[in-house]
Amino acid sequence: MNKIIFLIQREDRKGLLAEISQYFYSRGFNILHCQQHSDTIGKRYYMRLELDIADLHTTRKALQEEFAGFAQTLDLTWECHFTDYKSRMAILVSKTSHTLFDLLSRHHEGDLSCEIPLIISNHPDLEHIADQFRIPYYYLPIEKGKKEVQEQQIRKLLAQHHIDLVVLARYMQILTPEFTQEWYGKIINIHHAFLPAFQGANPYRRAYERGVKMIGATAHYASEDLDQGPIIEQDVVRVNHELTPDALRKVGKDVERRVLTRAVESHLEHRIIIWQNRTVVFSAEH
Amino acid sequence: MNKIIFLIQREDRKGLLAEISQYFYSRGFNILHCQQHSDTIGKRYYMRLELDIADLHTTRKALQEEFAGFAQTLDLTWECHFTDYKSRMAILVSKTSHTLFDLLSRHHEGDLSCEIPLIISNHPDLEHIADQFRIPYYYLPIEKGKKEVQEQQIRKLLAQHHIDLVVLARYMQILTPEFTQEWYGKIINIHHAFLPAFQGANPYRRAYERGVKMIGATAHYASEDLDQGPIIEQDVVRVNHELTPDALRKVGKDVERRVLTRAVESHLEHRIIIWQNRTVVFSAEH
Amino acid sequence: MNKIIFLIQREDRKGLLAEISQYFYSRGFNILHCQQHSDTIGKRYYMRLELDIADLHTTRKALQEEFAGFAQTLDLTWECHFTDYKSRMAILVSKTSHTLFDLLSRHHEGDLSCEIPLIISNHPDLEHIADQFRIPYYYLPIEKGKKEVQEQQIRKLLAQHHIDLVVLARYMQILTPEFTQEWYGKIINIHHAFLPAFQGANPYRRAYERGVKMIGATAHYASEDLDQGPIIEQDVVRVNHELTPDALRKVGKDVERRVLTRAVESHLEHRIIIWQNRTVVFSAEH
Amino acid sequence: MNKIIFLIQREDRKGLLAEISQYFYSRGFNILHCQQHSDTIGKRYYMRLELDIADLHTTRKALQEEFAGFAQTLDLTWECHFTDYKSRMAILVSKTSHTLFDLLSRHHEGDLSCEIPLIISNHPDLEHIADQFRIPYYYLPIEKGKKEVQEQQIRKLLAQHHIDLVVLARYMQILTPEFTQEWYGKIINIHHAFLPAFQGANPYRRAYERGVKMIGATAHYASEDLDQGPIIEQDVVRVNHELTPDALRKVGKDVERRVLTRAVESHLEHRIIIWQNRTVVFSAEH
Repeated sequence: MNKIIFLIQREDRKGLLAEISQYFYSRGFNILHCQQHSDTIGKRYYMRLELDIADLHTTRKALQEEFAGFAQTLDLTWECHFTDYKSRMAILVSKTSHTLFDLLSRHHEGDLSCEIPLIISNHPDLEHIADQFRIPYYYLPIEKGKKEVQEQQIRKLLAQHHIDLVVLARYMQILTPEFTQEWYGKIINIHHAFLPAFQGANPYRRAYERGVKMIGATAHYASEDLDQGPIIEQDVVRVNHELTPDALRKVGKDVERRVLTRAVESHLEHRIIIWQNRTVVFSAEH
Repeated sequence: MNKIIFLIQREDRKGLLAEISQYFYSRGFNILHCQQHSDTIGKRYYMRLELDIADLHTTRKALQEEFAGFAQTLDLTWECHFTDYKSRMAILVSKTSHTLFDLLSRHHEGDLSCEIPLIISNHPDLEHIADQFRIPYYYLPIEKGKKEVQEQQIRKLLAQHHIDLVVLARYMQILTPEFTQEWYGKIINIHHAFLPAFQGANPYRRAYERGVKMIGATAHYASEDLDQGPIIEQDVVRVNHELTPDALRKVGKDVERRVLTRAVESHLEHRIIIWQNRTVVFSAEH
Repeated sequence: MNKIIFLIQREDRKGLLAEISQYFYSRGFNILHCQQHSDTIGKRYYMRLELDIADLHTTRKALQEEFAGFAQTLDLTWECHFTDYKSRMAILVSKTSHTLFDLLSRHHEGDLSCEIPLIISNHPDLEHIADQFRIPYYYLPIEKGKKEVQEQQIRKLLAQHHIDLVVLARYMQILTPEFTQEWYGKIINIHHAFLPAFQGANPYRRAYERGVKMIGATAHYASEDLDQGPIIEQDVVRVNHELTPDALRKVGKDVERRVLTRAVESHLEHRIIIWQNRTVVFSAEH
Repeated sequence: MNKIIFLIQREDRKGLLAEISQYFYSRGFNILHCQQHSDTIGKRYYMRLELDIADLHTTRKALQEEFAGFAQTLDLTWECHFTDYKSRMAILVSKTSHTLFDLLSRHHEGDLSCEIPLIISNHPDLEHIADQFRIPYYYLPIEKGKKEVQEQQIRKLLAQHHIDLVVLARYMQILTPEFTQEWYGKIINIHHAFLPAFQGANPYRRAYERGVKMIGATAHYASEDLDQGPIIEQDVVRVNHELTPDALRKVGKDVERRVLTRAVESHLEHRIIIWQNRTVVFSAEH
């Protein structure tokens, strides 16, 4: 069943649920699913609505234009998505392949609702995996001191392919503020540690040295500040004294895969609202 | 903050969210929290609403009488609870004390929102724990072949103390159908296995023999059929070949405690709706 | 580092650790890792030893022949493996691809220490995945009433390719007793439920109907009795009232993948000893 | 069954298992359980042995004196424990009671193998809980600028009561280096965060602000540097955007309880070896 999804937020006040649900009901829409959150500390209201697209008797543009007027009177910040449109996702990689492989396998299995028009890398190493899944692979090396040139090429490719979401699947480059600002809320990064522990380089080595009993991974939206953007998803796995940094790295691969996939799914299913440096991630509807 | 909670269900149809939220909004109520579920297979609609009691400007009785009229026009099945009323919970035990101890500790800590006016047992063994927490302990032994007599005494005590919820904290007696029918949806039992695996007696011994790699526990509403009532909560813990049945029993205690406590919390916080043999358990609000 | 691995079992008695470790020490072997288990109920002793292959100054055959003599005096049941030999694994599939995809991806990533010389199926559906990973795909359909013919073809292929391990990656056929007996301890099956709950067909549908709050998967060695062989690995995932049988099926895919992969890893790393209908699964060395 | 437990460590070298097991075997001891770990990075060897005390035919002192000679020739660092001796544990608390309650309940249940001769606090608040479990409660307030005076009183009490282990059950005072050095490896602290994330004060508030999707707790041996001693146990629980800092605090109580209890059990069962700032925690025997 195709659906219309609204993501809405504003300062909290009384009656929002009644007014908004009334808005759609009076226009003949059935609300299939409605999730809300009132942040009592930030005094903010968040809502996710699913409507049955079969109830839409105008154009999509008309729906959005009319709602825009209503939203203005209520001072809502909002997005509208149609589930019959598949988001277009670009994957950026360097040399490690496990998260790339996981995303491509799940896409191939039909479990990730998106198109993957291209894979971009600063290294040539993973081209064979792209080939295996028949996805174009762009090798854009970084010349010393000329990172902006390469980033310019990337951004041009993203525009050209009408990309909606960029996934950094262990892409080992720090993006420029220009890039992260332009694409804010549309770049998902995976960090191989349980943030804010072990920000920065070599998290597994440092986890070993600290003697932690669990290691983790964190998927977050990329922001100007490295490893400090809004967190989408985290998970951990129990480890013990027997694991060397290399063993932690191997065990960690599974957590990285799982966490990145879940974060990408939440984004593609339009279940995330960002506010300041935190995310509201509504649970999956089934 | 004190709240009014409505639990509502009926056959699913369009517009219920808008109509119900509109009902409360037009009467000046702020909907603090609204959770819904549409069962697309059973074609049934479930809703849990939290209202701010400060918005109530009639008597509680008037609120319920007026809503009853509205509910009738919509054919709703519903309950209404006020969070400033503390449910009255009776605990039935036999000889094992770990779940009893856990409930009493949490109650003492202020983490279980209820009164515990009495503990009832068919054995005298756990009186000292009741004493420790200064709760009256009723020892009602079962004379051979005269179980109904003892059950009659229990039911009289429950009525006399205005009990709302009965928790079978490893109470090793099968209740009669009269009891479970009269108290349907108000008796929570803990079974020391991951149902439907290992229904009946000696689950840990049988888990050992089957060589399972996880053991579990299940909290469910008691029904006529042993271990077959609506499941509220389940959890498991990983085990391995090293654990004897006795070791499984010890490890299982933690899972039993955790599962029973969570189920009791869900019930006390009015987050459960029963329909046929399944439960809708809305997530905790915070 | 290449290693020699011994898996040993016998009736328990005093002194086994000292005698066996002394045996290897006096022959100049360093014991890299030693794991034991004394089953106090079954009165049985289990041991797994890792030796450094650099300490081997005879032929492998000589090592095993000499140890065979020693083992006979102690009445040991044992196996010896060399980690520089890669086990040869055949995968049997029907129409669902997620566990196949996971095994092939991990193998491609270098995380499964084995060769995969062939994939066999009773359906033509998954050939494209085999192609993608460049592994021969044998389509062996079952003619009505002539299952033994097809099974004969399978067993011939397994012999011809010197297969050590057969993985039933959602192969939806019941094997004959002849097959499971001949290959006992060498066929791993994945069942999409937390055994012994929901043995047999349609476990997700039945899990939905029973209203369980967790679903699971079980990897076990295939035996004559369907879903009753020795369990190797189990895991579960939390679910709630929102999940339809189809949603359970989707969520369950991840558990099935994870459980089957872990079981296959335990087998390939020679960490499993079977005794009667239970397994000793030693933890992974790192 | 009563047991003798040896904890052994030294620089790694060939043959240690054979030599040590031979030592005990030749003296008529049955090795009930033997766990080892070779740290390939730190080049260090760790071993935990369980012997049957029924095999002891000398005094305990003689056993230890003789082993001391053997240990010297092999340059072993070691400890020897007898399971029929119950360790004496002191609990230090401030104002929060949940971890105290959990330890006392489990002790009362017979699941913590120790004596608890006293509870010490810098506040009078929790005396009623000590009373409930009939354990002496020492209220030792800290006069401004005179912390050493109070600490002196604590240390005198610990000596007087022959205390083996000190548990800081949310004791909100930083101990002096003199105290932590004298008691190194014998003071267990619980920190209410997943270290090294959120070291120091107000971890739940900071977890909320960072928007993490899991919160945790860490039990570690106290050292001079706050929250930096060797980690014994960690665990986490999944949270979401709905939880305020107060809700995190409530949810976190369960993790703190669980983590502290497990760490205390590991210590009391003599399963921990410290080396530099890391711990080897052998798994529980059953």
